[in-house]
This record gives sequence, structure tokens and C-alpha cells, in this order.
Amino acid sequence: MMTDPQILLTPGPLTTHPATRQAMLRDWGSRDAGFIALTAEMRARLLGIAKGGASHAAVPLQGSGTFVVEAAIATLLKPSDRLLVLVNGAYGERMATIARRMGREVAVLRWPEDHPVDPAQLAEALRADAAATHIAMVHCETTTGILNPLAEVAAVVARAGRHFLLDAMSSFGALPVDLASVPITALMASSNKCLEGVPGIGFALIDRAALAAAEGNSSSLSLDLHAQWRGFERDGQWRFTPPVQVVAALVVALRRLEEEGGPEARLRRYCRNLEILASGMKRLGFPLFLDRAVQAPIIATFHLPKAAPKFQDLYDALAARGFLIYPGKLTEADTFRIGCIGAIDETVFRRLLDAMEDSLRFLRP
Amino acid sequence: MMTDPQILLTPGPLTTHPATRQAMLRDWGSRDAGFIALTAEMRARLLGIAKGGASHAAVPLQGSGTFVVEAAIATLLKPSDRLLVLVNGAYGERMATIARRMGREVAVLRWPEDHPVDPAQLAEALRADAAATHIAMVHCETTTGILNPLAEVAAVVARAGRHFLLDAMSSFGALPVDLASVPITALMASSNKCLEGVPGIGFALIDRAALAAAEGNSSSLSLDLHAQWRGFERDGQWRFTPPVQVVAALVVALRRLEEEGGPEARLRRYCRNLEILASGMKRLGFPLFLDRAVQAPIIATFHLPKAAPKFQDLYDALAARGFLIYPGKLTEADTFRIGCIGAIDETVFRRLLDAMEDSLRFLRP
Repeated sequence: MMTDPQILLTPGPLTTHPATRQAMLRDWGSRDAGFIALTAEMRARLLGIAKGGASHAAVPLQGSGTFVVEAAIATLLKPSDRLLVLVNGAYGERMATIARRMGREVAVLRWPEDHPVDPAQLAEALRADAAATHIAMVHCETTTGILNPLAEVAAVVARAGRHFLLDAMSSFGALPVDLASVPITALMASSNKCLEGVPGIGFALIDRAALAAAEGNSSSLSLDLHAQWRGFERDGQWRFTPPVQVVAALVVALRRLEEEGGPEARLRRYCRNLEILASGMKRLGFPLFLDRAVQAPIIATFHLPKAAPKFQDLYDALAARGFLIYPGKLTEADTFRIGCIGAIDETVFRRLLDAMEDSLRFLRP
Repeated sequence: MMTDPQILLTPGPLTTHPATRQAMLRDWGSRDAGFIALTAEMRARLLGIAKGGASHAAVPLQGSGTFVVEAAIATLLKPSDRLLVLVNGAYGERMATIARRMGREVAVLRWPEDHPVDPAQLAEALRADAAATHIAMVHCETTTGILNPLAEVAAVVARAGRHFLLDAMSSFGALPVDLASVPITALMASSNKCLEGVPGIGFALIDRAALAAAEGNSSSLSLDLHAQWRGFERDGQWRFTPPVQVVAALVVALRRLEEEGGPEARLRRYCRNLEILASGMKRLGFPLFLDRAVQAPIIATFHLPKAAPKFQDLYDALAARGFLIYPGKLTEADTFRIGCIGAIDETVFRRLLDAMEDSLRFLRP
């Protein structure tokens, strides 16, 4: 179990840098000054990535990304508030499910999975729905890999005087987000996507005024980002035991992000990964599912042609060659997915394409 | 950040074995067969420790121990159910807070922090409170380190025909629990206490009939142990991204527990740790807060005499000598705590006592 035999081409957990994993080789007292400093560095770096220092607070939370999405909805919506979710994939649907389960009033505006959210239709919907206090959207829908128009949607929401909740789970750290110029009440993401940390914590960057006004909203003690924030502000400590090794790994990953040149440099690397991947896959007979114009360089969905091997056979052949790919999540089209993110570059994707060619020869001799 | 400079004498996160931490040095695809097998091994080993294989299911959950305590209450109590919490410390109070926050009806039966829960008083209370459907108790209250009488309380609850929820956070893996003979509806614990894993997941061992009947109770998507269980039963996978390295570390820690000789052998080691610690501390002028008869070998609370250095000075002096101790959590008495658990044995406690003596000389020259 010492070394990593496989490259993960998944939407996370993904391939991390050995230095990030080595940060997990020590124990930390979670209430000791050393770990309090580590937590403070993490929170400051997360805010800095989105230029949120003047307006927002970084509130990390134990658990997966879904936990922090649920916590943000539970914390920021009062019981009488109403959530409008903009949906073009499974993660948008999940936000609606979460809010309904906790008893909040929910409306949904849907687009096909290969269509980005349309700001004009949203503007129209907001004129008709005066009761919707909060609008939620997924930045990059991992269902397909589609990119939604963040700045345009945020502007429509702000003009209508509503709050905007952004699930930036799979985009944060690579796709630009500027909290100083784009109006976002809360942005939720996790340690194990474009930040290239290991899974175990999520976090929200929340407008401080909205957060200060959110005391007592959440009916969950664990998933209460107001109380979690107050805890950090009081003594720098997590309210409940944090996954200390995951935090230590994220801090190293965040330092590495800065050394790489920040989100701009990371985005360039991921774009190059996608370019190599998409052109190679096309040559091998697997076209992209989405239009290139709406395809984010995070995860790519490919058509699986009728003549191609079955997904599980392809998966197994590639796994035997050191690469883990990902099943499709579409209900209608036969597809599979390959992630572009993680501590990997175009040389890995050239090797993947060789392995894919080899696998196809092996499966269709 | 490569090696561990300090021994953690805290209630967790605690000192883990290097082999456990080294299990975190690789990436895992969370939906790959290798990780599915790891999850299955973890779930089977957790059940096996408590002899629950015939009756219970192991349901791990992302997050801290508090998350799984909340999830168990949210999942197992219907909205019309009523929780009676037996309280003699902060973690009992926390269960009552959790249940109240989620809108469940709650009653509390309290004892002083240095008194164990009294089964006879509980029996009387249950005769008076026919509406209480679920009784919750902390096995070992980390507030003081006191051990509550598990078998006796479980028998009283069973005789009254109620459900019993046990927070075994700080005891599971060392203090014996036999689900085949002691009636417990759900036992909640975490990766980073006596199992000597790293923090990041909790788990519940839940009576399968009770779990099967609990569909739709939880108003939280994330904290729903019925849905989490169905996910594992369906395809062996976690519903939402698990902290893969934490799981890998826990599996290694569970294998190490078996190699050590199981909970019985671990309990002997911890008892020896406590013995060395308590007698040495007494010699240095720090008496135990609790009667030895109710002191669990998990964490010990010591009086801080008026003539002794202030806690923070003692903490800093010991930290400089490589040992992290823990503040007290009592409202009335001036105390501090030292953990007996983790991958440490009596040689460590002899070194700690030397460091304590040296610190006292340094602080009171």
C-alpha cells in the first residue's frame, strides 16, 4: 500500500502529488497551536484564491462536498425562505433534493444536460417568482462536464436582489472566481478536486453579512456553518474533531497551487490535458458528448459508439494498464467520462491514449 | 512535516502507528473494486469487534464522531418519537442538544459529572415516562473519563421495551461490547479513538431490523444512515465521496488491532498506561478527579492544585518536551486531562512522568 499503482482520471478523489500525501505522515493535536496555525493558513489561502478576503469568510466543514452544500443551504436559508435551483445535471438535482428533504420550499428551472443554464430565462423566471430568496447553481456540472455562465447568472441574481449559492465543487482552484467583482453569497467546494488535496473536507466561502445573519437557521448541529464559523473566529479551532491529516495535506496542496502560478496556471495545464485527450479520443473513435464551446477542462464525457467495447471491458483493460476512468452519469446517451484534473499533465494523457489504443486492440483483436 | 515530533495524550486525534499513517500514501479510486473491497473489510471488521455480524450492520459516515451521533438520532427516531438522554457530562448534553435542534422531543436525566448513570433511577424514570421511545447514553464520558454501566443500563432499557443508543466514541475497540448478548439498537463510534486510526469517519453499528424500518426519517440527505446503508448494500460504494486515505488507514489500524490480540489485549495495554500514569501523577501531587472504581482507562482527569503551575504553563512546558496534554472540561473543578489511548505503551508514560517532573522543576525553580 506504499505507492500509487494507478492514475485516477475521475472527478475526485483524484491523483494527488506525493508531497501532498506525505503531509499525512504525522499526527496533529487538533487543539494545539501548530494545528490552529495550519487551519488559519488553509482558511486564508482558500479565501485568497477567490479574492474574498474583504467580503467573505472561509468555513471548512468535515465530510464530503455534499455535506457542505447541505450545510450552506441549511445555514443560509431561513425556514420561510425559498430556493430556486438551476438544473442541468445530477448535482443540481441533488441541491433541490437536499433543500426539499430539510423542508425548505424549492422550485427548479431545468435545461437539457448538454445545454448551459440560460441567464435570460432565469431573469424571466425571477420576474415571475418574487418569493425565491436564494438561487443555486452548479458551476461545472460533473454529470457531463458542462460549464455554466457564472458571471452572467450572478449578475441576473444580483439585479433581482436575491442571494446566489454556487456549487463550485469541481471548478474551484482552476476556473476563475472573483468574489470582489462577481456577486456570490456563498461558494461551496471541496479539498479533493482542482485544489488537488485528498478528500475529507468541504468548505464554503460565505459573504460575512449573510453569515452573521444566519444564526440559528440550521436544524442540524453538525451542518451549521454559522456555528462552525463562530468557532473558528473564537479560538481558531474546529468545533468538532477535524480530519487533521486531510487538513495538513490540503495546506501543502494549496502551497503547491501558489507555486504552480495559481488558478490561471492550473487552468492552462488542465486545458492542455483536455486538448490532448479530446483530440486523441476523437482519433480513436470516441467523440466528445458536449460542444467544445461549453466543455469545461475538468471532466470530459465521451460517446461510447455501438461498435466499441462495453464500458466495463474498457474500464478493466485500462485499469490493468494503470488508468482508472469513470462511468457516464447520463440517463439517455451511452457515454463514459475521463477527468482532466489532478496532479497530472499532458504526458500522462499521451500515455493514457497509448493505453487506450492498446486496450482497443486487445478487446477487438 | 515528515515525522511526528509530539506524542498526543488527548482524547483523539491521538498518536497513531507509523504503519497506519503510511497507509495514506496512495490514491484510491473511490468507485474502483480495490476500494470497494477495502470498505467491505472495514465494515466487516467493525462488526466483528462487537460480535454484531448476526444482528447489526456497520454504517460508516464521513465526518467527525458528532456527525454520526446526529445521523443515528436523525435516522432512528421518527418525528413523533421521544429521546431520553442519560447525562453526566458534555457529550451526553450534546446528544440532547442535537435532538432538540432537529425538532425531536427530548427529556434529560442528569447525574453529577463524577457519578455514573444509575440504572435503578433510569428504571424508575422509564416507569414514569411511557412516551420515551429511545434512550441514549455515553459509554465513557470524555468530559471526565467516567465509565457508565453499559450492561445494566442496556438491560433496563430492554426490559422497558425501548431502543438504546450508545455513544461508544471513546471506548469502542478497547472496552468490551457484545452486541450478541447486550441489547443495543445502535452504537456510534469513530475512527480515531481506541481503534487508533486517523480522524475523518465515524460509524454506527445498527440493529438491522431498526435500520430497515428507518427509511425516510432523516430530514438530512447527508446524515441519513438508512440511505447510506442501502448504498453499501447495493454496490459496496459510499453514496458520497469518502475520505479514501482515512478509510485505508482505518483498515490497517483494524488489522493491527487483531494482531495485538483484539480489544482484550488493547484494554490491558491501556489499563497499564493508566496505572503508570495515575500512580506517577499522584506522586507528583496531581490526584485523580474520579474514584478509581469508575475511572475508565481511556482518559484521566487530574486535579490541578492551587500551588501547581497554571495549566497553560504546564501545557507549554510539556509540549516543548514532546507531549501534548489536554485541558479540563469541567465547569466547577480546576482540572486537566491526559489520554491513555493511542499507539503508545507504558514506556511512553514513564517518559511523560519524567518530562512532567522536569517541567515542574522548570516552572517552580
